[in-house]
Amino acid sequence: MALLVQKYGGSSVAGSERIIEVARRIVSATEEGHRVVVVVSAMGDTTDKLIKLANQITKEPDPRELDLLLSTGEIVSCTLLAMALRGLGSEAISLSGAQAGIHTDDTFSSARIESVDAQRILAELERGRIVIVAGFQGTTTDMETTTLGRGGSDTTAVALAAALKAQRCEIYTDVPGVFTADPKIVPQARKLKDLGFEEMLELASYGASVLHPRAVELGAVYNIPILVASSFSNEEGTLIHGGEPMEIKNKLSGVAYDLDVAKITILGIPDRPGIATSLFEPLAQAGISVDTIVQNASVEKVTDLTFTVSRHALAEAQKIVTPVAESLGSKGLVADADLGKVSIIGIGMQNAPGYAARMFRTLYSAGINIEMITTSDIRITCLVTKSKVKEAVQALHHAFYIEETEG
Amino acid sequence: MALLVQKYGGSSVAGSERIIEVARRIVSATEEGHRVVVVVSAMGDTTDKLIKLANQITKEPDPRELDLLLSTGEIVSCTLLAMALRGLGSEAISLSGAQAGIHTDDTFSSARIESVDAQRILAELERGRIVIVAGFQGTTTDMETTTLGRGGSDTTAVALAAALKAQRCEIYTDVPGVFTADPKIVPQARKLKDLGFEEMLELASYGASVLHPRAVELGAVYNIPILVASSFSNEEGTLIHGGEPMEIKNKLSGVAYDLDVAKITILGIPDRPGIATSLFEPLAQAGISVDTIVQNASVEKVTDLTFTVSRHALAEAQKIVTPVAESLGSKGLVADADLGKVSIIGIGMQNAPGYAARMFRTLYSAGINIEMITTSDIRITCLVTKSKVKEAVQALHHAFYIEETEG
Repeated sequence: MALLVQKYGGSSVAGSERIIEVARRIVSATEEGHRVVVVVSAMGDTTDKLIKLANQITKEPDPRELDLLLSTGEIVSCTLLAMALRGLGSEAISLSGAQAGIHTDDTFSSARIESVDAQRILAELERGRIVIVAGFQGTTTDMETTTLGRGGSDTTAVALAAALKAQRCEIYTDVPGVFTADPKIVPQARKLKDLGFEEMLELASYGASVLHPRAVELGAVYNIPILVASSFSNEEGTLIHGGEPMEIKNKLSGVAYDLDVAKITILGIPDRPGIATSLFEPLAQAGISVDTIVQNASVEKVTDLTFTVSRHALAEAQKIVTPVAESLGSKGLVADADLGKVSIIGIGMQNAPGYAARMFRTLYSAGINIEMITTSDIRITCLVTKSKVKEAVQALHHAFYIEETEG
Repeated sequence: MALLVQKYGGSSVAGSERIIEVARRIVSATEEGHRVVVVVSAMGDTTDKLIKLANQITKEPDPRELDLLLSTGEIVSCTLLAMALRGLGSEAISLSGAQAGIHTDDTFSSARIESVDAQRILAELERGRIVIVAGFQGTTTDMETTTLGRGGSDTTAVALAAALKAQRCEIYTDVPGVFTADPKIVPQARKLKDLGFEEMLELASYGASVLHPRAVELGAVYNIPILVASSFSNEEGTLIHGGEPMEIKNKLSGVAYDLDVAKITILGIPDRPGIATSLFEPLAQAGISVDTIVQNASVEKVTDLTFTVSRHALAEAQKIVTPVAESLGSKGLVADADLGKVSIIGIGMQNAPGYAARMFRTLYSAGINIEMITTSDIRITCLVTKSKVKEAVQALHHAFYIEETEG
């Protein structure tokens, strides 16, 4: 008898019929002899509607109030799911984040889970109940309700799986798994049977939106296998795990892309220690994530420095960096809001040379100019003009014959 | 500097514009130098919508799950109101029932407040904040969310006023106060400037829906003056209090009515001790409130017994009572679902004879048959056919010249 944590996303519980359908799926899992803890997101576009309501009241809703407001969305869906399970004759109980013992720090709107006190969940499981937990939310030591920010319910699910030592965390969504590329762009893209945490992390961080990187990270740290599958079909999903990948190692896992990239180049600043700190500390303090940073080789101790941020953060980043750049004696600042990233990801790249060269050649042959390049052990990312991203993904997927990846 | 507890009902916070309007009213109260704690109901018909959603999922939603579901309605309205107050430049914070320290028993769907731990509210007031509390809800010692049932938010407000030793509890609603009769039926009905707790309790219990009897009871026990007024105007409301009523004592406070009455008569049962117990205990166990009970004078130790229940409970009450009546040797059971109650209420009745006679005469003159009569010290109630209730209210209001009641 295994303990499973299942998570159902917003589209999976978008209406009462969907909720009853999800309840049936959960009952199937219990009938196979599993004990089940379920994490749910808010129904459909509930969270967006609540944000809209808050914005009708005030332009800048207080984050503490907004979190308490948004937390209701997941409570609605989890109570309804518990009712549906009871309607099918199963014993079930819903728990808010606080009731489920999900303790977070007090960073409203993007709180971090600090600990999970699983006592209540375990007691309910012991009573033979299916436990439904409201995703995306937690509580501070002061009884304040927090939300976990983007990918919050995925994170709740993996954190619970870790705390409960679950055999597996199953993320049910509206796509049937992780693909070698976005099937909307590359119709030949194949669903992966499995892949490693690191690869999934790179895929998720570099644009594959199927699973949030925070959840993948947590899965990797606690070594919780994560299944990504559809709640709309019985198709086999993709298993993300820490073991030996079952698939051939010297192939790529996938091509990822991200259309939300802007870049700032600071021209002609002195190449001396401390420059990066004085530029990037104020950005960090303003909560702006800097992604890629590239510094050109310096000529006569003067260099250009380029970094990327998400598009919506560009205006604020420019405002913060401009005075600093001036005080450093920069010759000016150039911004470009129309960029995209395209990445190839695969554990196989570690030991096989030539991937980078082949990637650059492929993009060159397709007439796509590379603006910047960054790499990790298992990833190569090129920044290109936004309008060329789609073509780049198609060309790369074709070039690397990713269609054959699936065993 | 007084401490006020204000409560705003569902229609007062039905949309974002109404919420901003209510926020302005609260700011006015603080500008007059008052510290303010606010209790809010769910926006408009939110609670009904949530119940409908639950009924789409299952015919009999689990009460524990339903309470957690319904509690979200008040959290939404109280966070939005806190945002609106902040938008107007006031310091404000919203608290769920649990955060506000409202502890109840675990009777889901109609929990009783057991205690209020006002520490958090007092700390927030100390910080100069307006405190917005989600009405209608509380928490058990096991961290279970409960709702207080009908009139719940009124009860929350008066309980908080008692715990905080507030100077006054102000109930803002969509009517401007307590009237001598329902103005929809009696256009000449007058708004009362003030009345006593007991009279209000009789009025509320016998159909005047402006304030729930539980809240009035609580106000009486803790001697908290309650103002009932409109949030849609600046009209003076009605003050309910424990002091000497300012109005002339030998007049009536009002005429109340209730259209939700059904009666069951058990024919020919032996008139001996224990009969009432064997009939009414099973009804109490099924949670059915029995209102009026009348037993005829017995003839040869055999009697008829009649009692009333609310209309929706009639079918179940019949099912429970029929076998008991049979086992007692009853000659049969008669039910009537189309009854109403009409009551005259006033502290003045205690010392002035003739009210009852005048009431009966008035109904007789209007051609209205009286089915049953019950009385208290300050109330006389007649059961009449449902279709005659409106006429009865009009005739009684006219007969007692209640138009003159207001000082």
